[in-house]
Amino acid sequence: MLILTKLKIMRASIISIGDELLIGQVIDSNSAQIARALGELAIPVVRKWSVGDSSSEIAYALQQATACSELILMTGGLGPTRDDVTKKELAAFFNVSLHFSEENYNHLRSIFEARGLQLTDAHTTQCMIPSNALLLPNKVGTAMGLWMEKDAKIYVAMPGVPDEMMYILREELMPRIRHQKADLSCHHATLCTVGYGETDIALRIEPLLKDMPEYISIAYLPAISQVRLRLTGIHHDEQLLKNTLHAFTQKIREELKSMIYGEGDTNLALELGKILMERGLSLGTAESCTGGALAAKLTANPGSSDYFKSGIVSYATASKINLLGLDPSLIAEYGVVSAQVAEAMVRHAAQVMNVDRVIATTGIAGPSGGTEDIPVGTVFIAAGSAEKQVSRRLRLSRNRDRNIEAACMLSMELLRTQLIGN
Amino acid sequence: MLILTKLKIMRASIISIGDELLIGQVIDSNSAQIARALGELAIPVVRKWSVGDSSSEIAYALQQATACSELILMTGGLGPTRDDVTKKELAAFFNVSLHFSEENYNHLRSIFEARGLQLTDAHTTQCMIPSNALLLPNKVGTAMGLWMEKDAKIYVAMPGVPDEMMYILREELMPRIRHQKADLSCHHATLCTVGYGETDIALRIEPLLKDMPEYISIAYLPAISQVRLRLTGIHHDEQLLKNTLHAFTQKIREELKSMIYGEGDTNLALELGKILMERGLSLGTAESCTGGALAAKLTANPGSSDYFKSGIVSYATASKINLLGLDPSLIAEYGVVSAQVAEAMVRHAAQVMNVDRVIATTGIAGPSGGTEDIPVGTVFIAAGSAEKQVSRRLRLSRNRDRNIEAACMLSMELLRTQLIGN
Repeated sequence: MLILTKLKIMRASIISIGDELLIGQVIDSNSAQIARALGELAIPVVRKWSVGDSSSEIAYALQQATACSELILMTGGLGPTRDDVTKKELAAFFNVSLHFSEENYNHLRSIFEARGLQLTDAHTTQCMIPSNALLLPNKVGTAMGLWMEKDAKIYVAMPGVPDEMMYILREELMPRIRHQKADLSCHHATLCTVGYGETDIALRIEPLLKDMPEYISIAYLPAISQVRLRLTGIHHDEQLLKNTLHAFTQKIREELKSMIYGEGDTNLALELGKILMERGLSLGTAESCTGGALAAKLTANPGSSDYFKSGIVSYATASKINLLGLDPSLIAEYGVVSAQVAEAMVRHAAQVMNVDRVIATTGIAGPSGGTEDIPVGTVFIAAGSAEKQVSRRLRLSRNRDRNIEAACMLSMELLRTQLIGN
Repeated sequence: MLILTKLKIMRASIISIGDELLIGQVIDSNSAQIARALGELAIPVVRKWSVGDSSSEIAYALQQATACSELILMTGGLGPTRDDVTKKELAAFFNVSLHFSEENYNHLRSIFEARGLQLTDAHTTQCMIPSNALLLPNKVGTAMGLWMEKDAKIYVAMPGVPDEMMYILREELMPRIRHQKADLSCHHATLCTVGYGETDIALRIEPLLKDMPEYISIAYLPAISQVRLRLTGIHHDEQLLKNTLHAFTQKIREELKSMIYGEGDTNLALELGKILMERGLSLGTAESCTGGALAAKLTANPGSSDYFKSGIVSYATASKINLLGLDPSLIAEYGVVSAQVAEAMVRHAAQVMNVDRVIATTGIAGPSGGTEDIPVGTVFIAAGSAEKQVSRRLRLSRNRDRNIEAACMLSMELLRTQLIGN
């Protein structure tokens, strides 16, 4: 453990480095992860920059970040390949030289020996670090993190590979920063809604928020078929903050009732799983247009095998007959994209899979394949048991990804509302 | 169509606005999409900022962006709810007033009438726009884009909802910018590899790139079980640039051979699908630990129904017996996480689904559930036909999401290499 100067961190900023971010080939998820971690310590992120792998750009960002924050977190630009200029620029910024780090070299050597590989020159170059830097161990990759200080501010450089960044952030950086946080509390409350738009929700809750104090703000975070409401409060009096935040969260909850499927860092599949678990019900899926995405969402949460048992992706019409046992004459009569087929998929899948509840989807995800009666974006969703099914027709967009996502969300919601009795 | 002043756009910058970006609740994918679109027009993005919903922060970003670019693209902060300060700050920046836009109002009214809904006061507030702004139509949502000019620079504000931003970007903004681009050409070449690490690849190709000219740069973009190599060139002589870029891309292709599964903006599922199509082969999946994610990847590409027919997610052991028809004694003998079971899943699924090829996965995605012999991260993947199967044991991590992704990628790769005969 490093011996740290106790610095007063009030504000943080994030610099993500890499040409790939500027041409849009990589989406910067690292900075969101860093912001979340800092949020847990009530350290607000005030600004973020993305700059290219260039000395002058990194220098610009360091200078800007220094002007507005006490904790500057960088990702990217560390690693064995030639697109790395970060360390050189850091040394220049701190007015120190690069020196060969024995500790970094030993770290690399141990990784390579374990794999039975030889270290190359490219790897030894990786061991040159600014002489004022302390190393932050990385147990999941070769590039170690760097911790540097200047004029009572902290600068941390982490690799850009998301797993390696996350390891250093969670295991090494956060424990060190935890000792240094300022006394301002920051709390969030998040309510997750499904099936309604931003405006619908705003119209219902804005009147309730007229007397909300200045130190609490609300944001509407729309995603496909979902809106998350996030209340953020910052105040020195933590108890007051918590109480007020709780009171307004409660008001919203009472207004929106079952439109809210969960609170905090959750997802609809997880909340649906909790209801199934409570009632001892097993679940299966019968998917056509969602092509496995529904099962993937349901099984993405650890522990989902407690209720999720089986899925069938009956993509081709023949597989609806062969795998699910649908009657060809039913398909011929109503068409494969119909409420009748969606409900039959639930009924048959419940029997074939021997599960208590099934969610089914059938539709035209697009971008092509529609007819006048059944345009692209038409999806029938159904949910229920072998005995009883409900279904709904969705009129979605021409965008395939969006339609798949919406059909997954709204079909899970169909089962959820059925189970909770709305 | 707007009549545009012909401005010289050499560099662009992107400002994403929203508190949700700074607390990390939303990952900024918009700026990557914008950067890609500008890349097609050879307009480099030089910097990106993310700032909160605050006047002073937006003012800061506008000032910084103005200093380094001629085209400033903003997303976020437009919409009916109260977290919007963008329009007010834009008006202040341009030193103009906000005025009520009849055009914007008519746009909103037509959307609302089509849905049989009433416009509210919150919506009419949305129609107040800076008086120097031209509106960019939005056919997929309520918030229109804004185009503003000042001192021979262009400023564009778009909503933050990804679909709406994309619509305005692609349908309205790009055609307008296309007229204005500068004469410097920018070209990219991307080679997509699977199954090898960044360093392995660098060691093989760096010697080939010794004589690569300064105006071409290479970046290694690692993802889970994948590395994309991106060569970027910027030069006034477009033909020279294309020829040189092609020559170096060719050198790399000859060295890495079948490690490269595709080129440009593609994905492994799409490339595997092309091979299956060429050979007239149908495909199915039999998934355990990947829980539908493999089928979802395969069906995410439009047109996948030409080869993808069925999937079974046999999550519970019972469903491997009931749905796939595996012999319980095989499972008892080798265990459910074994090469024998993975291969049997392929064999049985090919018969049950009546498809030519099947990809199967069985393993322990984690984060818990392992044993000493079969620790978390152990996955067996198999691919082949009813007659012939190959399988492979993967030793992955303790991270569930990562393991699912890796098992999907490497199992698709197993079938791909089997098909192309490596």
